[in-house]
This record gives sequence, structure tokens and C-alpha cells, in this order.
Amino acid sequence: MRESQVYDLLRGYDFKITPYVSFKMDEVPKIDFFPIVVKLESDKVVHKSDFGAVKLNINSYDELAVAKKGITANVLAKGIVLDSDDRFIAAQMLSGIELYVGMVDDAVFGKTIVFGKGGIELELYKDVCSIDIYADEEEIKRAINLTTISKIFHGFRGFEYSIEMAVDLIRAVQKLSLNNPNIIELDFNPVILTKDGLIIVDARIKKGEARAEKLGSLRKNRHHFFTNERVALIGASSDSMKVGYAVARNSLDFEGELFFVNAKGGELFGHTLYKNITDIEGDIDTAVIMIPSGFVVDTIKELVQKNIKNVIIISAGFKESGDFESENIIASLSQQYNFNVIGPNCLGYLESFKKLNLTFGIGGLQSGGLALLSQSGAVLSALMDKAYDAGIGFSHLVSCGNMVDLDFAQMIDMLNREESCRYISIYVEGIINGKEFLRAIRESQKKIYIFKTGKSVQSQKAAFSHTGNLSGNYAMFKGLAESVGAKMEENIEALLFNPFNESKNILVVTNAGGPATILTDYIVDQGGMLYTLSDEEREKLDSVLPSNWSKNNPIDIIGDAMADRYAKTLDIVSTFKEVDLVYLLITPQCMTDTLNIVKLCERAGAQKIYPILLGGHEMEEAQRYLRGKKIPFFKTLQSATSFL
Amino acid sequence: MRESQVYDLLRGYDFKITPYVSFKMDEVPKIDFFPIVVKLESDKVVHKSDFGAVKLNINSYDELAVAKKGITANVLAKGIVLDSDDRFIAAQMLSGIELYVGMVDDAVFGKTIVFGKGGIELELYKDVCSIDIYADEEEIKRAINLTTISKIFHGFRGFEYSIEMAVDLIRAVQKLSLNNPNIIELDFNPVILTKDGLIIVDARIKKGEARAEKLGSLRKNRHHFFTNERVALIGASSDSMKVGYAVARNSLDFEGELFFVNAKGGELFGHTLYKNITDIEGDIDTAVIMIPSGFVVDTIKELVQKNIKNVIIISAGFKESGDFESENIIASLSQQYNFNVIGPNCLGYLESFKKLNLTFGIGGLQSGGLALLSQSGAVLSALMDKAYDAGIGFSHLVSCGNMVDLDFAQMIDMLNREESCRYISIYVEGIINGKEFLRAIRESQKKIYIFKTGKSVQSQKAAFSHTGNLSGNYAMFKGLAESVGAKMEENIEALLFNPFNESKNILVVTNAGGPATILTDYIVDQGGMLYTLSDEEREKLDSVLPSNWSKNNPIDIIGDAMADRYAKTLDIVSTFKEVDLVYLLITPQCMTDTLNIVKLCERAGAQKIYPILLGGHEMEEAQRYLRGKKIPFFKTLQSATSFL
Repeated sequence: MRESQVYDLLRGYDFKITPYVSFKMDEVPKIDFFPIVVKLESDKVVHKSDFGAVKLNINSYDELAVAKKGITANVLAKGIVLDSDDRFIAAQMLSGIELYVGMVDDAVFGKTIVFGKGGIELELYKDVCSIDIYADEEEIKRAINLTTISKIFHGFRGFEYSIEMAVDLIRAVQKLSLNNPNIIELDFNPVILTKDGLIIVDARIKKGEARAEKLGSLRKNRHHFFTNERVALIGASSDSMKVGYAVARNSLDFEGELFFVNAKGGELFGHTLYKNITDIEGDIDTAVIMIPSGFVVDTIKELVQKNIKNVIIISAGFKESGDFESENIIASLSQQYNFNVIGPNCLGYLESFKKLNLTFGIGGLQSGGLALLSQSGAVLSALMDKAYDAGIGFSHLVSCGNMVDLDFAQMIDMLNREESCRYISIYVEGIINGKEFLRAIRESQKKIYIFKTGKSVQSQKAAFSHTGNLSGNYAMFKGLAESVGAKMEENIEALLFNPFNESKNILVVTNAGGPATILTDYIVDQGGMLYTLSDEEREKLDSVLPSNWSKNNPIDIIGDAMADRYAKTLDIVSTFKEVDLVYLLITPQCMTDTLNIVKLCERAGAQKIYPILLGGHEMEEAQRYLRGKKIPFFKTLQSATSFL
Repeated sequence: MRESQVYDLLRGYDFKITPYVSFKMDEVPKIDFFPIVVKLESDKVVHKSDFGAVKLNINSYDELAVAKKGITANVLAKGIVLDSDDRFIAAQMLSGIELYVGMVDDAVFGKTIVFGKGGIELELYKDVCSIDIYADEEEIKRAINLTTISKIFHGFRGFEYSIEMAVDLIRAVQKLSLNNPNIIELDFNPVILTKDGLIIVDARIKKGEARAEKLGSLRKNRHHFFTNERVALIGASSDSMKVGYAVARNSLDFEGELFFVNAKGGELFGHTLYKNITDIEGDIDTAVIMIPSGFVVDTIKELVQKNIKNVIIISAGFKESGDFESENIIASLSQQYNFNVIGPNCLGYLESFKKLNLTFGIGGLQSGGLALLSQSGAVLSALMDKAYDAGIGFSHLVSCGNMVDLDFAQMIDMLNREESCRYISIYVEGIINGKEFLRAIRESQKKIYIFKTGKSVQSQKAAFSHTGNLSGNYAMFKGLAESVGAKMEENIEALLFNPFNESKNILVVTNAGGPATILTDYIVDQGGMLYTLSDEEREKLDSVLPSNWSKNNPIDIIGDAMADRYAKTLDIVSTFKEVDLVYLLITPQCMTDTLNIVKLCERAGAQKIYPILLGGHEMEEAQRYLRGKKIPFFKTLQSATSFL
């Protein structure tokens, strides 16, 4: 679309457009709004700037005539001869802060608005946010406030612009886009911020066929996944090197009924091994499948006869190995017979409050309020290990695998109906249906934490090769997820620690000033809050510490501190009501009795105490002790702060 | 200075200034350069914008009259009545990219130029670099290219601006500042980038008394520190709980002469314990002092009688405990009698090629090409531990302590004369004499790596409380250090690993796609380069790997990989000439034989192989093996990439 056509279209909406006039090659327009910018309007030239077809700072009719000649010559030099179809547009130049608003039809998220700093800074600083085309005012504001430029709406340098001006602009773009589905790209840059509002100074619109909005595996009357009374293990095995053995062993504590199936028959852990699914009497709620991929489709067909509601396919060898066909069949069956599928190619599923562990991961996990969904079995496995060490408990674990049916959106919906789940953490590599994903987060009653890979082009390639999923644009994913209320994590361990560390008023107690300074940098860098000591609190510490203690947080109790000095310090610190996290930073000095110091962490109290043990061999005894007590600890300053 | 006075001053230098006219309250100036900006010129109003004393976009004499009235009313509303002394200035408004140049007289670095993106973006995006007032053209360019806005000098969006324009501007500011020592602050914002050059549109200059340029502990004819033939240990002790014992034990391998001194007399490790320093026959080159702080000054006076050249004061209890006086006396003595001092309040000193270990840290360190200077004993100690685990060797270790005499600059100078030292890594909390520090780096023949604390205000406070040193502005420190050729590290372990990993063409071999995607993100984030497989290399791998391997770097050899598949892969990878670093990313899968896999790391080859072992208990055996072989390994993806 030519620029003046774009402006004609915009006129029907709540946009403010700079004064302009469109005129023919040989016409002299009447202009009462110098200085102006003069631009060629021609279908022959798309990238006007690159062709020298834009002239700025024109102050008079004489300069306008020169500019027209210059543009004509510039495009001629590129081989383009203008004719009577071609026009010029002269628009008033405005001074002010340059903003940007655009709209794209994204492969993952569909139509999405991008807003932020415009002008050349758009590409230099990429200070933009992403906003769903269906976002409401609250989401729009939340997104805008993720940009640095949004400071101008909050008193920066005395500016008194209202954020409502930006909201109105975005609302108008939403309306324009929804009314004109054939607009597939839109670019207003710059939009000038003036006292009279946001004024569009340059606009491009591209029309075409919009992507179909995906519906994903949306289905009415889906069974609630967490209705599991009668569970079958297909491929339970007495061969201790097989997955079917590990899962069977982990499943034994289940409070409902278990049925083991193996064509060889026999017995395992006191349970009959049924040779055929049909040998089991009555219906089956849930089946976990751990047999070679070639037999999976037929097995599912048999399960359909048992009115199956949920299937977990641990077996690998599907999409990730090039077999898309079997996955398509499984997807159709699940639609047709209304059963849920997790997987294939996954590590399994765990629901701790029913003691239903259908994973082949380690046992002995604690129950807790966190549901963890992971698109990678190996990552889930590493996180389970870490959680085990740190004594963090789960309500649900889902290894999502290839997500032939249930995807994150449906899992979030279901988890919202589970009382035992208080937080949801998700490891994401790629999603298919962005709109549906946003909808689920938006409606979630539980706080959602997300770590997503694919920041770099290279890792997008890596993810593609290994799950066959789209990884999408990381910045857009992050921006949209945050605008609908999720918390995006920069470090994967934060998926475990962050739900339990929401408010962070942090205090550091240490015997070494140097590492404490580094730790302070890391804490601040991660957005942590360092608690400020009151005079009264300082006096209390004065009474038990040597005179050269740091007098500040970090509380440096000096290198010769033994356990008793740590104990006295922690006694006082425990009375600091607003502190909720204490780092006990210990370095090996000549006589430091680390073991006795870390024993102090066992004291019950409202504050979490996380020991950080710098140094190698000298620390091993203390580490063993902490591991035995399931007290989380850290060995580097960086890992200690990575979840903040 | 009033703006028109500033312009008068600038006229003597190579600056371009926007057309302007300065006129009295009741005067109507002749203006042939509309549009203009009108500003009040009055000593009564410093912050013009805040007082509504600036009016933009004035296009005619009529608008000018309105603007003058408006400004008068605005300042009156703030209680300021203008009189005949006050003037207005009208300057032509120019459109273009807004840049910034400023100069400050910094407490640490003295006069320093700041250059970058101007306009409101200056404060929003802080896209600026720092340039020493004495920087040459190469340094200036290096600094400019650290900014994002410098892209406009390198073809960004077809801009054809030359970086020389910016260099000329900075040169002119250098000249102006050097010729006018009483200029202590300068602020040109914006400077508009036009085809005709960089044009100053708004300028402020503040005059006052400049800080004296510090000379630090500069001294001619300083002894070379590394001349150590006869070394005395003052406070050598047979009490194994004392520092004097640990240092004496560590010193025993020294190839020169050792003298142990202890008032109690006796014998230690076969050496006589001299009761007095004077009992030692002949001169002493170097003494390490490990006695209570109250006796240190007198001891030094005795050492002066022995023509002492170098003193290492391990003893604490000086500045850090409030005793500034003793430090001043020691500093004077060192000037007067021309001896070097390291410390006080430090961990000691190590020179590996002479087997001179005067630290109370762990023994058994390897020799190597890296000299490490640290302003914190605890940090040095943690790094020594890490280096021990990773088999990284040192040429010199210096625990700098309170730096009463030798500071980083002198140490760098001296290390440059030491053949055994190839790289210098420095842990910095704060420095006093910035200019001297920059001079030393600028002249250094050895590559310098720096980690500095004090990014956050909070950590600056922490550092202050513990070393009493200025921490300074982190961004300025980083910018200046980089402009003179140092490499600033974001992670402290990089001080150990980075010197040995200069060129990084990285390959990942793994049995788990998920973690590999995260690792890829981290690598790219840290500036690492992922190697791209050629078709030929891909075919080679095809011949030994299962068909569903990733076909890309990261090379995912699939979860069921045993050691033999890793071996075949590494055999092929070892022929990839351009790869210099291989991450072997291992996750515990059902049957992974981690121990046999990590044994593959022992193969000699041009490529470094770093194993990353995700997962807990299952990995312990392999970890023990690697530790025994002194092969560095990592347990998290983040730590594995932190040094890139």
C-alpha cells in the first residue's frame, strides 16, 4: 500500500497522523506546515531510504523543488524512471521522542503487536515489547512497562506523558488488525510523542493472507488427567536393565490399582504379569506404555476397548526418529476416542500425593507444592536430581516428550484444578500454538515459572534437530509470557528455587569481605534486594562482634570467626523480621570449623539459610553433612544467586 | 559559564557549533535559520529544562515572542525575576542522530571523556564509552567501537558516516581540556551527526579546581621485586596452628637461602630459628612478616639495616582495623629506604619457577604461565583451590592486601620483565591511581585479564568496609581498561580459564538434546563460537552414528550411547582442525557408563576436552576419576561456559 492509502485507511480509527499532502509529479502542493519531509510514493520503489527517495528538513517551496529533482535523479541512478502514476508525499516534520508500533503475523503466536523506542534506536537497542492482539488494558500496560522507554510515562526527566496515550495507540492497532484480517504486517516508525498525543509520521502496511489461527489439540469434555484409579503398565519387565523394570518398581507405592502387562507373562514384585491387555478385567483409567515403538499403535487400539482415559507413552522412536505417521495415528485416535496422551518419547509422569510414580527417574523424591513440566527428559532428570539434593518436593512431574496430544496449555488448565499444586514450573524448548499457550497462562490461578531455550539461532537449530518443534523468537516469547503474567527465568535451576523464594530481602553473613563483594554484585544483578541494617540492629551486632566487623550488610564477622561467633550473629539476625533469606558465606581460613558452622543451618526459623562453601577439600565434610540433612547449599557464588 | 560564553571558548578549537544568536531580554534578534530552539541564558537558572526555560520548534518571529513570554512566566512561577543581565539564546534546530560527548574529573581516573548516544537515550540506554584524556587514536577508536551506536560508523542501515568524525570531536575535547585545566566538567548533548560533521547544539562547561593528578607510589630505581636470593621469614613458628608454621613449611623447596626468625629461638624443619634479625649474617633481599601488627614497624626498621629490597607483610590489623598511622609510617620508610612492600593484610606471595612459596595457602600447585594478583586473600584462596582441581599452573601469585606501596601498576610493570609470566589475571576491588593503572596496562606486553567487583552501589559499600579502597564507577573502569587493551571478565573463574582459551571454536558432543540446547544458549551468550560442521564431516559422523543423530553441532549421539560410540565420535572430531574446545556433555541415561566415557578425555590432542557431568550420585565415580587425573570438569552448564 502507498503511504497516502495507508493514511486513508487509518483515518477510520483513533490514530493521529502528521499533516501531509500527496501530490503528482508536476504538481506544486499548498503547504502551510514547513518544515517537511518529502518522500516518493511509487509502487516501483519499496525501500525509499535505500533509493535516496526521502528528503528531510525541507523548509520552503524552493527547497521542495530541489528535493523533488534530487529524488527523481536518485531513483533514475538506480534505473527507475518515474511517470505520471508516481506521486510525492510531503509530511510535516515533528520533533519529539520517537516511538515505534508494529504488528506481525508470527508463526507461533499469530498476530502480535510490537511496541517500543522508534527511530534508528529501534534496531540499535531493540527496546520493544510484544503484546497479544487480544491483550486487555492490564496486559498492554504490563508489556509496555517491560521496556526501558516506558520510563517516560513514569516521571523520567520530568516528562509528564501518560501511559494511556500508548495504550490508546495499541488499542487502535488491535482494532485495525482485527477489523482487517488481511493486514499481515504493519510498521509505524516513528510515532512522535507530543503533548497532543502520539502522531504517526511514517506508516507501512502489508496485506496478504493471514495464518490460520491454530486450535492445537483443544477438545471439549477432555477427561481430567489426574483421575487415575486403575493404572496399567504395558511393558513392565523383570529385566532390571529395562525401563519397564524401573517404572514398575517406582510405581509400587500407588494407592490405586496397578496392572502389569508383559507378553511373556509371569510375576513381578508380587503382581501378575498379564500377557494381554484384554486379560485385565474391567476398564483402565491410565496406561503407561514402555514397549518398542512398532507395537504402540496396536496397543493403544486395545486400550481403547478398555475405555482408556489417559495414556503415557514412554517409548521413543517416533517424530524424533522420523516417524511422523505413527504420531499422526495416535493423535487421531486420541481425538476420536477422547483420551489424553503424554509423550511419546518421554521419561514418564509422577503425581506425588497419590504416590503414583510412573517415571524411570530416581525414587525418594519429596512431596511438595511444585508441578514441573519438561519438554526434555534429560533436563527433567537433572532437575529431579537437584531437587532431591535440595529437599525440594513436587506435586506433579510431567515429562512432556513429543506432545502429540496434551501440550503445555492443557496441562496448565488441568493443574489448575489440582489442589496439591501451588506453583507450575515449565522447561520449554518450543511450542506450536502460541495463542492457546498465552490463554492458559492468562487464566491460570497458579503462578507460572518458565525457562525457555532458543535464545540464540544456534540453539534453535539444536532444539529443532532434537524435538522437531518450533523454537520461535525468544524475545517475543518472553515478552508475551510476561505480559500474561508468567515469570521468565534466565537460569534453569530457578525453576526449582524461585517458587519458594518469592520475596527476597537478603542478608549475607560471612568471614571474608572479598567474596562477599562479588556475591553482592551477583545478588543485585539478579534483582535481589539487600536488606539495610537499622541502627538498632547494628548496635546489637556490635555487642557480639569484633570492632572491625563490616557494620553493614554483608555482615563480615572477620576471618578468625569460629562457629560460636556465627551462632551469636545468626541469633541476632533471626530477630530481623523483614529478612527472609540469609546467605552463610564461608571461606576456609586458617581455623574455620566449617562443619560446626553449617550445623547452625538446622535451626528452625522463618528465614531460609543457604550456606555457600567456597573452597575445595576442606569443605567436603561439611558438604556431606548438609547433603545428609537435605539442606540445600552452594559451592559457587554464581550458582547461589542464579535463582534470584 | 553561560552557553554563549561556552561557544566563544569552543571557537578556538576544532568544534562545529550550530548557528545561534545571543540577545538581550528586550532585543529582537535577526534570525535566518528557523526552526530554532530558544533558551534562557541566566546565572539564576542552572537547570533550564526543569524550569521550563527551553522552547523547541520555534518557526517564526511571532512564535519567538510567545516563547520568550512563556519562559519569563515559567521562571517567575518558580520565583525567579529576570532582569537586564539576563539574555536569551536562539540556536538553529537540526535533525539527525543525536550523540553525546562529555568530560568529567573522576576521583579515580582523573579527567576522562565520555562519548556515546546522546539525546534522552543517554540516560535511558547508557550507551557510552570512557576515554582517557591522554588516549591516542587507536584507544579512542577501540573505545568508540565498544558502544552500540558505533554501528552507524560501520555501515548500519546504509549510513556512510566515518568514525574519524567522532575521533576528531574527541581529539578536540582532549585538546580543550588539556589547554584549560580549570575545566572540570563538560557536557555537549546533543551533538548532531550531519553530513557536514558533528555539530554541537547544546553545551555546558563547568570550571573549578581540578583534582591533582596522583603519582601513586611511583618511584625511580625501584628494585625488581623478583630478585630474591636471601629470604627471611619473620615469625616462622613451630606451632602448627599458626600462619608462621604454614608459610615456613611451604617455603622449604626454595632454591635460594632461607632464614627463619622467631624470638623464642630453637629450630624448625632443620633450619635455625634466629632470635633476632641482626643475628643473620649479611644482607637480606626479601622478608615475609607474620608477627602481631604492633611489632611490624620496628621489625621493618631492623630490616632496613639489612639493606632489605622487598617486604611481604602478611600480618593484619592495619587500615582494615582502623590503624592508618602504621601504614603511613611503613609507606614513608619504603620511600625513604627504597624497598618494595606487598601487603599488609595479605595471604603472601608465590613465585613458582624459583619454588618460592611464601603463602599460607594450599601447597602442591603446578607451575604455569599465569600470574595472578588478588586484592582479597579469600578470593585468591578460592581461586588457588579451583586451579588445583583444574590443573592450572601459575608463574606468580600475589595477594596484594592493603597495597601500602606496590599497587597493580607496579606489579604489572615488574611482571613484564619476568619471562615465566605469559598472562596476568587480576582480581580488583578498587584502585587509587587510575591514570597510572591505565598506563601500566597500555605498556604491558602480556595480555591482562581483570575481574572487578563494585558493579552495584551495594557491593561498593561492601568493598569499602573491607579494604578501605575506592571502588569507583564500574562502567568507567571497564570501558577504560578495555580501551587500553585489557580484557574485562564477567565471571571470576574466567581469570583462570580464559588466558588458556583465547580462540574458541567450540563443539559439543552429547547424549541429550535438551541440555545441549541450553548449553548452546549459554555458549552464544558468553560470546563463544559454535563450530559449523562441513558436509564431509557430517558424512564421516553418519558412518559411525545411529541415523537419528542430530546432524549438527551440538552432536547429539542419542541417549543410548555407550563409551564406544563416544570414542568413535571423538576420533572423528579430533580431525576437525579448526575446533579447539570440545564439551563432552553427559547426562545419566539408563545405561550410560560415565566412567568409561570420561576416560576418553585423557587422549592427548590439540583440542581441549571439558566434560560436563549433569546429574548427582551416578556421576560421583567419574568425578573422582577426573579429579585424580587433574582434568577440569563441570557440574553445571552455566559454570562450564562462564569463562568463555
